Amino acid sequence: MIIGIPAEIKKDEYRVALLPVGAKLLIEDGHEVLIECGAGLGSGFSDSDYTAEGARCLDGPEEIYAGADMIVKVKEPQPSEIALMRPGQIIFCYFHFAGSRELTRRCLEKKITAVAYETLTDARGRLPLLTPMSEVAGKMSIQEGAKGLEKPMMGRGILLGGVAGVKPADVLVIGGGVVGTNAARTAAGLGANVVIMDINLDRLRYLDEIMPKNVTTLYCDPHAIERYAV
Amino acid sequence: MIIGIPAEIKKDEYRVALLPVGAKLLIEDGHEVLIECGAGLGSGFSDSDYTAEGARCLDGPEEIYAGADMIVKVKEPQPSEIALMRPGQIIFCYFHFAGSRELTRRCLEKKITAVAYETLTDARGRLPLLTPMSEVAGKMSIQEGAKGLEKPMMGRGILLGGVAGVKPADVLVIGGGVVGTNAARTAAGLGANVVIMDINLDRLRYLDEIMPKNVTTLYCDPHAIERYAV
Amino acid sequence: MIIGIPAEIKKDEYRVALLPVGAKLLIEDGHEVLIECGAGLGSGFSDSDYTAEGARCLDGPEEIYAGADMIVKVKEPQPSEIALMRPGQIIFCYFHFAGSRELTRRCLEKKITAVAYETLTDARGRLPLLTPMSEVAGKMSIQEGAKGLEKPMMGRGILLGGVAGVKPADVLVIGGGVVGTNAARTAAGLGANVVIMDINLDRLRYLDEIMPKNVTTLYCDPHAIERYAV
Amino acid sequence: MIIGIPAEIKKDEYRVALLPVGAKLLIEDGHEVLIECGAGLGSGFSDSDYTAEGARCLDGPEEIYAGADMIVKVKEPQPSEIALMRPGQIIFCYFHFAGSRELTRRCLEKKITAVAYETLTDARGRLPLLTPMSEVAGKMSIQEGAKGLEKPMMGRGILLGGVAGVKPADVLVIGGGVVGTNAARTAAGLGANVVIMDINLDRLRYLDEIMPKNVTTLYCDPHAIERYAV
Amino acid sequence: MIIGIPAEIKKDEYRVALLPVGAKLLIEDGHEVLIECGAGLGSGFSDSDYTAEGARCLDGPEEIYAGADMIVKVKEPQPSEIALMRPGQIIFCYFHFAGSRELTRRCLEKKITAVAYETLTDARGRLPLLTPMSEVAGKMSIQEGAKGLEKPMMGRGILLGGVAGVKPADVLVIGGGVVGTNAARTAAGLGANVVIMDINLDRLRYLDEIMPKNVTTLYCDPHAIERYAV
Amino acid sequence: MIIGIPAEIKKDEYRVALLPVGAKLLIEDGHEVLIECGAGLGSGFSDSDYTAEGARCLDGPEEIYAGADMIVKVKEPQPSEIALMRPGQIIFCYFHFAGSRELTRRCLEKKITAVAYETLTDARGRLPLLTPMSEVAGKMSIQEGAKGLEKPMMGRGILLGGVAGVKPADVLVIGGGVVGTNAARTAAGLGANVVIMDINLDRLRYLDEIMPKNVTTLYCDPHAIERYAV
Repeated sequence: MIIGIPAEIKKDEYRVALLPVGAKLLIEDGHEVLIECGAGLGSGFSDSDYTAEGARCLDGPEEIYAGADMIVKVKEPQPSEIALMRPGQIIFCYFHFAGSRELTRRCLEKKITAVAYETLTDARGRLPLLTPMSEVAGKMSIQEGAKGLEKPMMGRGILLGGVAGVKPADVLVIGGGVVGTNAARTAAGLGANVVIMDINLDRLRYLDEIMPKNVTTLYCDPHAIERYAV
Repeated sequence: MIIGIPAEIKKDEYRVALLPVGAKLLIEDGHEVLIECGAGLGSGFSDSDYTAEGARCLDGPEEIYAGADMIVKVKEPQPSEIALMRPGQIIFCYFHFAGSRELTRRCLEKKITAVAYETLTDARGRLPLLTPMSEVAGKMSIQEGAKGLEKPMMGRGILLGGVAGVKPADVLVIGGGVVGTNAARTAAGLGANVVIMDINLDRLRYLDEIMPKNVTTLYCDPHAIERYAV
Repeated sequence: MIIGIPAEIKKDEYRVALLPVGAKLLIEDGHEVLIECGAGLGSGFSDSDYTAEGARCLDGPEEIYAGADMIVKVKEPQPSEIALMRPGQIIFCYFHFAGSRELTRRCLEKKITAVAYETLTDARGRLPLLTPMSEVAGKMSIQEGAKGLEKPMMGRGILLGGVAGVKPADVLVIGGGVVGTNAARTAAGLGANVVIMDINLDRLRYLDEIMPKNVTTLYCDPHAIERYAV
Repeated sequence: MIIGIPAEIKKDEYRVALLPVGAKLLIEDGHEVLIECGAGLGSGFSDSDYTAEGARCLDGPEEIYAGADMIVKVKEPQPSEIALMRPGQIIFCYFHFAGSRELTRRCLEKKITAVAYETLTDARGRLPLLTPMSEVAGKMSIQEGAKGLEKPMMGRGILLGGVAGVKPADVLVIGGGVVGTNAARTAAGLGANVVIMDINLDRLRYLDEIMPKNVTTLYCDPHAIERYAV
Repeated sequence: MIIGIPAEIKKDEYRVALLPVGAKLLIEDGHEVLIECGAGLGSGFSDSDYTAEGARCLDGPEEIYAGADMIVKVKEPQPSEIALMRPGQIIFCYFHFAGSRELTRRCLEKKITAVAYETLTDARGRLPLLTPMSEVAGKMSIQEGAKGLEKPMMGRGILLGGVAGVKPADVLVIGGGVVGTNAARTAAGLGANVVIMDINLDRLRYLDEIMPKNVTTLYCDPHAIERYAV
Repeated sequence: MIIGIPAEIKKDEYRVALLPVGAKLLIEDGHEVLIECGAGLGSGFSDSDYTAEGARCLDGPEEIYAGADMIVKVKEPQPSEIALMRPGQIIFCYFHFAGSRELTRRCLEKKITAVAYETLTDARGRLPLLTPMSEVAGKMSIQEGAKGLEKPMMGRGILLGGVAGVKPADVLVIGGGVVGTNAARTAAGLGANVVIMDINLDRLRYLDEIMPKNVTTLYCDPHAIERYAV
């Protein structure tokens, strides 16, 4: 199969859908990989990192879309990208169709085979392509929150971990899934007193067993929310 | 020197001032050890544990006080014990003279040489014979407090460590010395959220470095007391 | 549905079957909640905590049993309660029928629909309404055991955690289920050296991974019991 | 003594030199406290928080400087503040004279008694008024560094803690004093692999004993710097 | 059933297939146990340990094989043992047939019922009789590796844990199954910086949750291998 | 000063007394460094590592001893080395004079200025040049002990850390100084149950605060030794 990797064009998107090692593995399996010149730069990979593995670098997205059986990219297609798609072509990316009727309509019109990362499930019903995004999101949420609490950022001037003799911040995390667990662990690592709420007691029991001791689990009901979150 | 170990007679005192191994070491160093029959029973040592090390067991305290150059015991002397003391005899025990003018007066009258455990200091000014008592006191304080919180003990029905999904108890420890540190560690070990207050920031910094993460250090001032202790 | 919450009348039972937030959620879902005056006092909730959420407070159990489609309570029904039940009424509580043929016979005669908490299973065959009781039981077992070891309680005068230089107590926990795991963690938190035995090696492996390091896992067979438990 | 607390006027300085509880303690000891209206706002304290403790609020700094025997403030005096100082008045703040010959000259001309926080030493030669600043600096350094590594901040797009399956960042901390220790602990709490260098092996041994396991200590010499820091 | 336990005869094999407590349990269940004299010596059990539980000790393997319905042993049968087997006899041991066509052929000729420990699976498809061997193997691998790094063993003179101020060794573990997890934990316990690689991200996430902090998880692909393993 | 570094000639000694970075620092301070060719090979440093820093490599020890004001080496001088020493020359190494009257006599005859690493004390009376050796010794003691317990090494076939369901080994460490502390931490890291004994209760208290939980501290007296060490 010919697999095409266009450069991402959405604002503030620096990722690339395929690492050089991914190109290597696909090519070893008999596939052909076309990558747009400069597609890996935002993630620290040069064109030669890809060509060294056997991929071909092409200027601009037109030849990629024209030549590939399957397009692998990161973000949902932008209008200029949809225009390049061909009927029957497989497009593999985060689509988030539920968020845009317009995007959905256009993709249907193009008669592509759209495979949305965010909907793929594994044997146990989990979402393996969403999990790493959620891990990053959980960790970043605390990093951004810590920043937002700084006085020069118009915050309340609170340092999450406090210092000796000064109470650390209280952090409430609602939801003990992948995002919440990563947020709780990051906030606890910074020294905050963390409460993590969920309605799944089994999950809370597991979190009790593996979380650092400055994380407290709490069953989530309206009264608990009112008491700790307001 | 002839060293005498009378049995303790104060109510609820089960300790003995000398272990069999202590008798062994003293005798190896050329001393003689007289011990009252049954003195070690409350601590789990039989008379033969002492005689096996070379100590002599005597019935009743009279012969002990009559024969010994130094009496080693645990609690402050009771009236019947003071009556047996001889001028110049060394009495080594917890006296706590500050708590009883009567005891002090009688000991002075007896012209004994009183060595009070609780006042002995080491090279750094610490109180090595008080420290183990303080360690026990700190640990027991939480054990007694946990018991007192039980509903059948007329307590508020709070389990210090909570369970998954239920907030653990908040425990405030005022003072980060030996007692407070042991209390804080015990309460944290049971799963409570612990705050330990002190006016010595250096001590709080050290506690921050070695305490489990569910212990928070707090500088102690009147506002902090009002906020957390009431 | 009309849901009734009688006050518990069994000795030493201070719980209430429904929190105010539970009343709120049921009423939001269209149900009606009748609660006996004072039913929540033992758990720290006043009548007004319930009426603020829309529940009606009634004096005595008679009107509760007369008006409710479903009775939710904690302990197995006492004779005076059975007398109030009506045919077809749903009674939801810990019945423990296996422990009392008399209770079983009377409930059958009353033609109630009895739902026993302790028999409800989740999708994985576990007992979600027993687990929190087991967590509490496991933690309390060590608290009670620690108390029972105190000298004034006629115990052997052992402090579970010891102090520096003195060996902590050895605690043997037989069974690594919910009760045993909570007991082991509590004893370890107090500083004891803990051995936990089970015949399920997979469970022991998991406990090895998450337990503090002063907990040792041991496969349980008659020789192990003889060696460590006697 | 009459103690005056002017509002801080240096840019981005939100602190106040005295908490309301400090005013309370000084007044209980027989002192008088004058505070500039609004001085506590940046730290979350209203004027009434101070007057409730017995302090007097005055508009503008002029009356503070005119009436107080001792001025307690945070930052080094600004020109408009120096103009208000009176000969013999005690000024207690962070002066950092070494950083400004001009400031030093003017303070000398004013014949004030300058007490610089940053030079006060305790009995062991440490700097108790600098330590908390260093603790904050160490923790903030990692928070700022984490922010600076974000892609939208023109950073390299590295998340300090990584996620499962992705190597965390390597963080090198040069110097194992108060700043470095707090930086190392914060970076380790976020999940980074941390190396902390110092030329004091005793300090490194202590850090080895109390730091989390993702902190490695390294003796600092030119070769080590070249190898890990470049 | 009559169960026979021959002594192991393969070189460097010191184990015995049945502990005395196993004999006790089998006999309580109505079986008969024959054990070769001295079979338990290498594991620290005397013949009388077995006979005390009701087993019969026989000299040499001939009577064991002649009398037992099922032979339980550790290592794959050696030629002299195969010669003693009888058609229909159950032989329960580690066979590893895949490693020896000759062994397989002979066992087939003997018409025994061979049950290979290493192929038994539990309800979840795992290999319960291999797991403990893998645990030992993982732990021993680090112990042997540490030894092999010693200078007198012709190693590079590296101490896995380093000392304060000296970087610990880097240990790469490929595969996060039972062997790899035990190896990683042992190396981390010795103080090494450990990287554990696997292609199962779920497993790496779990290891991230339970492993000590000096273990880093890394997704395994050819580039990662090249970078860390060479 | 001219500083000479001869190659070590004692059996099984692979160390070198000066790293290349040490040569760099000495030369930057105005000294001259002479090193015997190949002296660094056993520690992984080539001659060019030294010459790159400005040191001069000389063949054989004769020119080193003839030209240097101070000889820095590792092990006590061997007879062939003593023969090369010159009166007044400073010799800096581990001498351990107490262990050899012959060595002491010869060094006196040579009228050298002998500085023994093992006797240098810091301001607090500690032995800074012995401590790292003790750290290594403590860690190696467990590594060697683990090896010695292996069955093929004629040991008892005990794995220090056990596996899930099998009790780990009991390790007794007598003395809580540098060697003992490192041994205890290593054994605990491997999973053993460790007891560490000392007669200094302050030291045991500190160890209790920083050691992993599978290390128990025990006051050392003859009875304790008899009970745990035999």
